[in-house]
Amino acid sequence: MNIRILLSVISLLGSHSFAQNLNNVQFPEMQKATGRKEIRIPGIMGYQTLKCDFHMHTVFSDGMVWPAFRVEEAWAEGLDAISITDHIENQPSKKYVSGDHNTSYELAIDLAKQKNILLIHAGEVTRKMPPGHLNALFLTDTNPLDVPLVQDALQAAKKQGAFIIWNHPGWKAQQPDTCRWWPLHEELFEKGLINGVEVFNEIEYYPIVLDWCISRKLSVICNSDVHGIVSETFDLENGHRPMTLVFAKSRSIESIREAMFANRTVACFDNKLAGKEEFLAALFLASVTVKSIAAYENNNQELFEIKNNSTIPFDIETQQGGKFTILAEASIIMPLVRGELNGITVLNLYTGSQSKLKVDLF
Amino acid sequence: MNIRILLSVISLLGSHSFAQNLNNVQFPEMQKATGRKEIRIPGIMGYQTLKCDFHMHTVFSDGMVWPAFRVEEAWAEGLDAISITDHIENQPSKKYVSGDHNTSYELAIDLAKQKNILLIHAGEVTRKMPPGHLNALFLTDTNPLDVPLVQDALQAAKKQGAFIIWNHPGWKAQQPDTCRWWPLHEELFEKGLINGVEVFNEIEYYPIVLDWCISRKLSVICNSDVHGIVSETFDLENGHRPMTLVFAKSRSIESIREAMFANRTVACFDNKLAGKEEFLAALFLASVTVKSIAAYENNNQELFEIKNNSTIPFDIETQQGGKFTILAEASIIMPLVRGELNGITVLNLYTGSQSKLKVDLF
Amino acid sequence: MNIRILLSVISLLGSHSFAQNLNNVQFPEMQKATGRKEIRIPGIMGYQTLKCDFHMHTVFSDGMVWPAFRVEEAWAEGLDAISITDHIENQPSKKYVSGDHNTSYELAIDLAKQKNILLIHAGEVTRKMPPGHLNALFLTDTNPLDVPLVQDALQAAKKQGAFIIWNHPGWKAQQPDTCRWWPLHEELFEKGLINGVEVFNEIEYYPIVLDWCISRKLSVICNSDVHGIVSETFDLENGHRPMTLVFAKSRSIESIREAMFANRTVACFDNKLAGKEEFLAALFLASVTVKSIAAYENNNQELFEIKNNSTIPFDIETQQGGKFTILAEASIIMPLVRGELNGITVLNLYTGSQSKLKVDLF
Amino acid sequence: MNIRILLSVISLLGSHSFAQNLNNVQFPEMQKATGRKEIRIPGIMGYQTLKCDFHMHTVFSDGMVWPAFRVEEAWAEGLDAISITDHIENQPSKKYVSGDHNTSYELAIDLAKQKNILLIHAGEVTRKMPPGHLNALFLTDTNPLDVPLVQDALQAAKKQGAFIIWNHPGWKAQQPDTCRWWPLHEELFEKGLINGVEVFNEIEYYPIVLDWCISRKLSVICNSDVHGIVSETFDLENGHRPMTLVFAKSRSIESIREAMFANRTVACFDNKLAGKEEFLAALFLASVTVKSIAAYENNNQELFEIKNNSTIPFDIETQQGGKFTILAEASIIMPLVRGELNGITVLNLYTGSQSKLKVDLF
Repeated sequence: MNIRILLSVISLLGSHSFAQNLNNVQFPEMQKATGRKEIRIPGIMGYQTLKCDFHMHTVFSDGMVWPAFRVEEAWAEGLDAISITDHIENQPSKKYVSGDHNTSYELAIDLAKQKNILLIHAGEVTRKMPPGHLNALFLTDTNPLDVPLVQDALQAAKKQGAFIIWNHPGWKAQQPDTCRWWPLHEELFEKGLINGVEVFNEIEYYPIVLDWCISRKLSVICNSDVHGIVSETFDLENGHRPMTLVFAKSRSIESIREAMFANRTVACFDNKLAGKEEFLAALFLASVTVKSIAAYENNNQELFEIKNNSTIPFDIETQQGGKFTILAEASIIMPLVRGELNGITVLNLYTGSQSKLKVDLF
Repeated sequence: MNIRILLSVISLLGSHSFAQNLNNVQFPEMQKATGRKEIRIPGIMGYQTLKCDFHMHTVFSDGMVWPAFRVEEAWAEGLDAISITDHIENQPSKKYVSGDHNTSYELAIDLAKQKNILLIHAGEVTRKMPPGHLNALFLTDTNPLDVPLVQDALQAAKKQGAFIIWNHPGWKAQQPDTCRWWPLHEELFEKGLINGVEVFNEIEYYPIVLDWCISRKLSVICNSDVHGIVSETFDLENGHRPMTLVFAKSRSIESIREAMFANRTVACFDNKLAGKEEFLAALFLASVTVKSIAAYENNNQELFEIKNNSTIPFDIETQQGGKFTILAEASIIMPLVRGELNGITVLNLYTGSQSKLKVDLF
Repeated sequence: MNIRILLSVISLLGSHSFAQNLNNVQFPEMQKATGRKEIRIPGIMGYQTLKCDFHMHTVFSDGMVWPAFRVEEAWAEGLDAISITDHIENQPSKKYVSGDHNTSYELAIDLAKQKNILLIHAGEVTRKMPPGHLNALFLTDTNPLDVPLVQDALQAAKKQGAFIIWNHPGWKAQQPDTCRWWPLHEELFEKGLINGVEVFNEIEYYPIVLDWCISRKLSVICNSDVHGIVSETFDLENGHRPMTLVFAKSRSIESIREAMFANRTVACFDNKLAGKEEFLAALFLASVTVKSIAAYENNNQELFEIKNNSTIPFDIETQQGGKFTILAEASIIMPLVRGELNGITVLNLYTGSQSKLKVDLF
Repeated sequence: MNIRILLSVISLLGSHSFAQNLNNVQFPEMQKATGRKEIRIPGIMGYQTLKCDFHMHTVFSDGMVWPAFRVEEAWAEGLDAISITDHIENQPSKKYVSGDHNTSYELAIDLAKQKNILLIHAGEVTRKMPPGHLNALFLTDTNPLDVPLVQDALQAAKKQGAFIIWNHPGWKAQQPDTCRWWPLHEELFEKGLINGVEVFNEIEYYPIVLDWCISRKLSVICNSDVHGIVSETFDLENGHRPMTLVFAKSRSIESIREAMFANRTVACFDNKLAGKEEFLAALFLASVTVKSIAAYENNNQELFEIKNNSTIPFDIETQQGGKFTILAEASIIMPLVRGELNGITVLNLYTGSQSKLKVDLF
């Protein structure tokens, strides 16, 4: 309710503008501020935690926006790296746009440099199931992937050193009532042509895929697959677009590539995390601090101040069945018996399709 | 601060999803709701008040978005009519897009019908000053406007019955230190080739142009000239994009055209209105109601409930120098001596470059 | 994120204030605007729909605020009527406050008249279960209720024509694992000493109580029982405090009393409604309008514009299993086969503990 | 617009609750989250920057709330220290409340310990001008200040080691058309009975007082003087209540006292700072970092990333007349010629009634 603010401006501008300038008066207060907000997620294990989205579209396939805009919105949201993955085979706007499969990258790279966003050259191989859709990242030339056989397309990517992601394996348009790992996926996987799988796409979570990734040493991937505007698709007031967190040696494309092949990734969606237990435990413990501040009247309880430095809230269940939430970028004060902070379950940190992080907080 | 909301969902989904489905779990709470909000501005004098934006760009000139997206965002914001006005002469993306000057209209019209948005076929004649940039509305074919001489372009528009707007006359890139009506504008005006002028463009107000419009019987026009995303360019939490209010006999393109040639328009920007006194007075009086609810202790004052049904707040100054704001879509209670509500000035309603609406409220 | 707005003000005030006044410069933009927003819920069946909260506390029992503040916040939120129901027997602050059981009413009634809020004189009889806590409304003097026997207290209320509400019957502090109608309640009910029951209190819903109310002809009641600040207790950005909707012949205390004894009430909480089917159907149909706006490509579908004039969103399930939400104070466009709008279930309108409203929308 | 979120909850709870529990279903999503947010302002010169508000009221003078609530809201907003300063002489509610001048402190101190808020024992000496109103902080017993002569009251405070603040010297109710330092203030000042002056109170700034403080070695003080609810009085979405920043050796009452007598304070209001140049320069330079990230096409410009770690935005004017804003807790990218970052003026950092901070940023 900031009408009052606007009105102060109105009256000020109103009275002064008349005296000063009849030609051109600016009203900058109408504009939205455009700054970059940091997404606070701590580094772990000596790595930087980079916030990445490896799946999005532009007018050069079936998206609504010009390629450079994808850089602009990633910068504003606080991301470190993105890849534009226009469909190689599905281009409904082809009649109205020109260029080849590298065009969308080329139209975004200059702004990426100016905004210090890591732009990863990529493309989306788009087939029926199996094998469905696959993103190839870290390309130098997307055009050689435009070939009839999917195996040939992926080999062309691999020749360039690509990291290949199987996208939205449980998408109902392709797997309406299951999320199956087909023999063709097994074949591609054995040839090194699948290196990661999306456990999350847009607003869909595929729990079974989290188990696949952990058991097969595939990277856990989480992407927006945005076709429209990120800020109009996702509720950025209360969270972020789906992101892949990459634990990288440095903030560079090469380090991201190294980390992804080493499976150092976690999915981050809807204020939840999904991935290997060791990463989730490290992220949780790097985010949260606990301090006893006073005795409390009842039951040998103490008042504990629990502070969360990260943008991810944590939803806690104690062994005694108590539940509370450690709010994002905030501190709370809880009356607890000291032992209650041991063996807690973090309900929104998924270590497998049916398991959640258990950890000692104090 | 809706973290708590998200967390409730987290815990609910968390616990149930595991039991129910390992393939695909939807998280619709991540998405922004997409409904159309009404912009509450009352009809006046027997006319409907239509909210219009006659100036915007797409990838088919120097904009960031696909044409159909302009319909989508106009629908969501609550507008009635828009025109896409891609530059005829200035097309930096020409190498990457195909089609002719009608393409952006054609790529948006189907969605416009589905969303019940009035899409007005148009184009922007883009020249150096004089005469600068001019929008031609209500075209049937924009291609004939692509000719060397600006007079020929505008005549081609007029042949189609176009309404022609001189855009951003005080734009500093073209008129750095003045806002001049050139002899060429006089010539075009006399030939009926200028029918309205933007008194406001994006975030710029040209007070002198309001006087031009009133004295020459030109329509007052107010447009966004948006190239990026409306919701990221303008602060829609506290206001709207710049709009031209059109007082039309019905909600149709033909009625808008009739109203515009009859100068039944008002500029609406930054929670202000600018235009003919009779329209502003009618809008104000149709928006606000006053009721005495109780005597008040001091100075023969009464408590007045003042209710504003419109989305425009009104910033009031009484003859006694008192100032208060009638908030948008809200009511306030003010202690006032009865006579104080006569002869008030509405500080954010501009009837001329140096005059504001004076009106009796009670 | 309106930092930009503030900054415009900063620079304007900054530059001008220095020249103008070194003694006292006002920054009204720091303040929150204080207007009253209408809660849009339509009248039905010829009655006005009044928004009421009949349960709240002040420093005169165990609340945090001065009585007049309860009027202030009810006015700002858009309520029509409230009652302050300080505990008669439970007064932890008694050592620090003075007066009798009418004091909190007396300290609020003047502001209520100035703000046009209907303030109902009341008190809370506060006992162990059974019968628990009961609010007596429409009193003229609360002091006679301060007697040892609960039956005597309620008879003293009845002598004044009181409407008596059993509060939070399922409160775990008093009924930890059930929500029982005790023999004492049956006795009080038969003597006319229970006239309504809270189906909802603060953030708790007691579904079984909805069935009691409907079968026994008790009024459905829904209250905040707020002890702190309403705007800090409830998320008013996305909803309202719990409210009892009263369908009254006019906006007066006497009409509210008549309506409550006639059971013309509905509970409104968390963007849901609970009450008699006839009231819910009437509220839904008075809120929503449907219009076919265009044919749609597939399956004989049409595009329907569905508009919701009320502040309650409606969550719809069609007989075919389709789900969608009619957003609050917004319109949506849905592709539907015409018959799909018959026999819909409104998932957030509860007609009984295990039933939801079924209705034809078109 | 988080209706969608609520609706997800609705449908989930709706379907499950019926099967699970007819007695009591909780809707925690209706509640506002209650965590403490950090106010990010860096420490300087080896001191911690503590955020303090030394002026506020409760029902024990003319405020609207119970004393403990002042602790609750200070905790949630992120403050370190407060003092409750109920009027000693002006108690309109005296008829309805009991206790002495220490009661409001006593009713808040337990919660202060539990919330780790530093609660400073205090009181407001309330007289006509001169000398007006004065707050005495760091008392052990406020009762001895309740004496007829103001000099005696202040001496009684001084005997306890009090720090004494002259409140709102430019308040129009007491100094309608000036802000005068009266002979009585000179006398009190010389006796050490005025140690600081409010340069800001609630929404009022007294620029001349900033000069007084700097020339006379008085501490710059900035307080809310809140009588109602902080979150309903001030727009906390876009800023904070007025605060005194204290540069203290540690987070303790004794350190605050030491710092205040040493004049290590700055006023923080409306996203501005006012105080000694050395403190403002240190705060600015500790908040902002600059990095050149790329060459830019025109005029030997480079793109600079400017990051602001503090909650205070900075409004910059370069020597060349360029203006831009370094948004709060965000980074921006600006094309600038390297030298432009020298000799900038920070328009919202006031070093005197007519001077602003000048500083080199790079």
